[in-house]
Amino acid sequence: MRGRLAAIPGVLQRLAAEQHSVDFVEKVQELCRRELGFELPESLLRGAWIAGLDMRAVYGAAMLATLRSIAEQVHATGFTNGRDPDETAVSFFLDCGYHAVDISPCSDGRLKGLIRYILRLPDEAIRYRNAYAGALFDVEASVGRWIEAELSRFREWRPVGPEAESRYLKIAVYHWSSSDPLHMGCAAHGSNRRRAAAGALSRLREFREAIQNQFCCGASVDLLLVGVDTDTDAITVHVPDADGELSLHRSIDNMDLYGQTVGDDPNAAYLKVYEALRVVSEQEGWGSGNGQPTEGMRRLVATLLVNNLSQIDYVCAAHGGRYADVGHAEHFISVGDGFEEFQLRNIAYYAHLQTLEEGTPDMDVGIRILESLNVSRGLPVVVAVHFRYDRRVPGSRDRTIAKCRRVTDAIRARYAELARRGLLVCGMTVQDQAAGSPLEVVDCETAPAARPAAVDDTSGRICVDEGGKP
Amino acid sequence: MRGRLAAIPGVLQRLAAEQHSVDFVEKVQELCRRELGFELPESLLRGAWIAGLDMRAVYGAAMLATLRSIAEQVHATGFTNGRDPDETAVSFFLDCGYHAVDISPCSDGRLKGLIRYILRLPDEAIRYRNAYAGALFDVEASVGRWIEAELSRFREWRPVGPEAESRYLKIAVYHWSSSDPLHMGCAAHGSNRRRAAAGALSRLREFREAIQNQFCCGASVDLLLVGVDTDTDAITVHVPDADGELSLHRSIDNMDLYGQTVGDDPNAAYLKVYEALRVVSEQEGWGSGNGQPTEGMRRLVATLLVNNLSQIDYVCAAHGGRYADVGHAEHFISVGDGFEEFQLRNIAYYAHLQTLEEGTPDMDVGIRILESLNVSRGLPVVVAVHFRYDRRVPGSRDRTIAKCRRVTDAIRARYAELARRGLLVCGMTVQDQAAGSPLEVVDCETAPAARPAAVDDTSGRICVDEGGKP
Repeated sequence: MRGRLAAIPGVLQRLAAEQHSVDFVEKVQELCRRELGFELPESLLRGAWIAGLDMRAVYGAAMLATLRSIAEQVHATGFTNGRDPDETAVSFFLDCGYHAVDISPCSDGRLKGLIRYILRLPDEAIRYRNAYAGALFDVEASVGRWIEAELSRFREWRPVGPEAESRYLKIAVYHWSSSDPLHMGCAAHGSNRRRAAAGALSRLREFREAIQNQFCCGASVDLLLVGVDTDTDAITVHVPDADGELSLHRSIDNMDLYGQTVGDDPNAAYLKVYEALRVVSEQEGWGSGNGQPTEGMRRLVATLLVNNLSQIDYVCAAHGGRYADVGHAEHFISVGDGFEEFQLRNIAYYAHLQTLEEGTPDMDVGIRILESLNVSRGLPVVVAVHFRYDRRVPGSRDRTIAKCRRVTDAIRARYAELARRGLLVCGMTVQDQAAGSPLEVVDCETAPAARPAAVDDTSGRICVDEGGKP
Repeated sequence: MRGRLAAIPGVLQRLAAEQHSVDFVEKVQELCRRELGFELPESLLRGAWIAGLDMRAVYGAAMLATLRSIAEQVHATGFTNGRDPDETAVSFFLDCGYHAVDISPCSDGRLKGLIRYILRLPDEAIRYRNAYAGALFDVEASVGRWIEAELSRFREWRPVGPEAESRYLKIAVYHWSSSDPLHMGCAAHGSNRRRAAAGALSRLREFREAIQNQFCCGASVDLLLVGVDTDTDAITVHVPDADGELSLHRSIDNMDLYGQTVGDDPNAAYLKVYEALRVVSEQEGWGSGNGQPTEGMRRLVATLLVNNLSQIDYVCAAHGGRYADVGHAEHFISVGDGFEEFQLRNIAYYAHLQTLEEGTPDMDVGIRILESLNVSRGLPVVVAVHFRYDRRVPGSRDRTIAKCRRVTDAIRARYAELARRGLLVCGMTVQDQAAGSPLEVVDCETAPAARPAAVDDTSGRICVDEGGKP
């Protein structure tokens, strides 16, 4: 996946060298077909013999087309296709006592492989996943998701009925860099690990208090705070006490455990993990709490730690224990609902939002990161706006397409200077909510009437239209 | 209420005449205190002897201060204070079979007295009330409100438990003008009565289908479509058939019924209303349906019609059967959550929104209306941004204040030309969700760092700060 995206600039460089030959268009399309697997939109090549090829637009089009082609490949291999979330995946969390899990990591691209690789959890079992800059998630939106999950439990007995002892778990995930802690940590918290952890913890507590105060009948949620060292993928789990309370000072550093368990067989490793849980729960001083967490939470934390030991193992074997790219190396910004197809470290910065007006802080951080990665090399920032609709709801697809356009227009208006210089390329896709549904490209050339007057329409030219479909 | 708002220009005119006298500041404050009941912010008067008084800013400040003073008066008289919504009000709807009612009228100011006067319903019994231009309500947001209402029924037995035969009712309200149907109807539908009715009806059907398709176990909702002649306040009720289906061609025009029942005693009127219900349900042709609606729906429709007969009576007695101001005469634009304190015909255009990005169409219509009312006279458009927070949710007040600022900044940025000319005055207030809570003024001078870079900061000067509190 990374390979195909990283290969694009090289191919385009060769393509640029051809641009003044007579049979340029055929040569270029032939090169693209062979090396990238698709042709470029005709509109980008038509006038190239006069004005020269707009390489920024070509780069954007190639990047977006590659993304769609990768997604098609992912679907074809059945990676996400046709899996039924109501099976073993959900039952793992149910065994731990949780009927619904909501994870809010930081938007940072180095956490993009969080669920599948760093925590090695079954993808389909995580009901809600929404990234926010600095893991500073939206409390009101989280309450909305809790309401939705509760109703499906009461009305539809999904995944279990209301009389079962099952609970809602909210996990926040912050991150830092052990190699370069002062520069390569969380941008939203000025690379300060402590501030990142404290920020996420205080949002978690606000969320729980919101549920407890707004709803009666003992409504509450369980909380978990996890940190990730993005250089090694080792996690730190803040262990709740028997009352579910968290502390910044009561946590298990999995890199330590890795050192203690290296070479052990799985059983021995599990025993050491449970022992670490016991020890940390009995500690005195700042991190002291009221005893060990519930049995289900112990099982969950132990599983997270043991799963993550395998990931540390992988990073040791494949990357010598530390990624070469400890810093940012995102290829694009993913905006809106996340792509389930792209879950890989550093592939994208992910800003979960419904309107740019609310998501401005998340988007600003992402633009800053991609600007320093791409614009310095003369390449544009590629933004993939993606929203999911519900086929069962009449008008949902049309409204979702309109939302795509609205958000894209707002992005172009806010970063107008980048757009004017051809350094902002936006693509739009929508997708049905059913797992494994194909990406559908939204043509940004149509229905310009719907755009607000303030939009700089000249930026429209760099969009990929239907012709650019792989 | 209207009197106090309408008096402002006259007072300001007298005040303008004083602006070059030496003891100007005292004179002005004395005049304001006496005639309007409050003083103007010092900051507006300070430099007046040099640059002249900024009458637009003064008008805006006076308008916003009057609104707050009226709200205080409303609270003091206990109009909305301390009422418990779980009493007779709710039981009226429960008697009709409905546990929750969600009304979406058009944003038009002539419907601002809809609940309290035109329909004469108990205010506190309407759980959700959100106005959209052309009554084209947000289907997804409506589904969210349904989820919330359902959960409180399942979890908290509010107002009744899940086993009771109770249902959710969504009402859409469009409008037209009988005096000048081609110009004074619904602006969002080009004053076309049929288009307004059809637009609202298709949203209603989309909403029902969304609920039916997204949720299992026979989830559904009841629908009702109501039209209002804004010149006479007479309603037209589209009568559902036994299956809950609506038709544009099956309706009862209450003005006809008024003609038939004038002089009757209440019992005779009720009989005629029920007779009209029977007749309309049995009609043949385009409007034919599958028999009479459910008993509860019959009771509800009959009550709406009889209540509205009293309102027509009032309009006949007090306004000769037809309002003098058949057109727009709004004094300000209410943005965000509606003010429960201001429910009066033509007092405000109400745009229900959480972000301007999503609410742009509603806001554009409102600005167009107020521009033609005020700007032509040289007066500014006054926008009262108002959101409610939940005291029980930690951080909710701060986030709501931030939302006020965000939306206000977005409004100033979108209508920058108006703002630049001093023709856009924005005020911000927040209010706790508990009924009868006081309005709290948000000072727009503080925390400028939170503002997006695109905002024209010169418009900041025309805000009313804490000093302008009545």
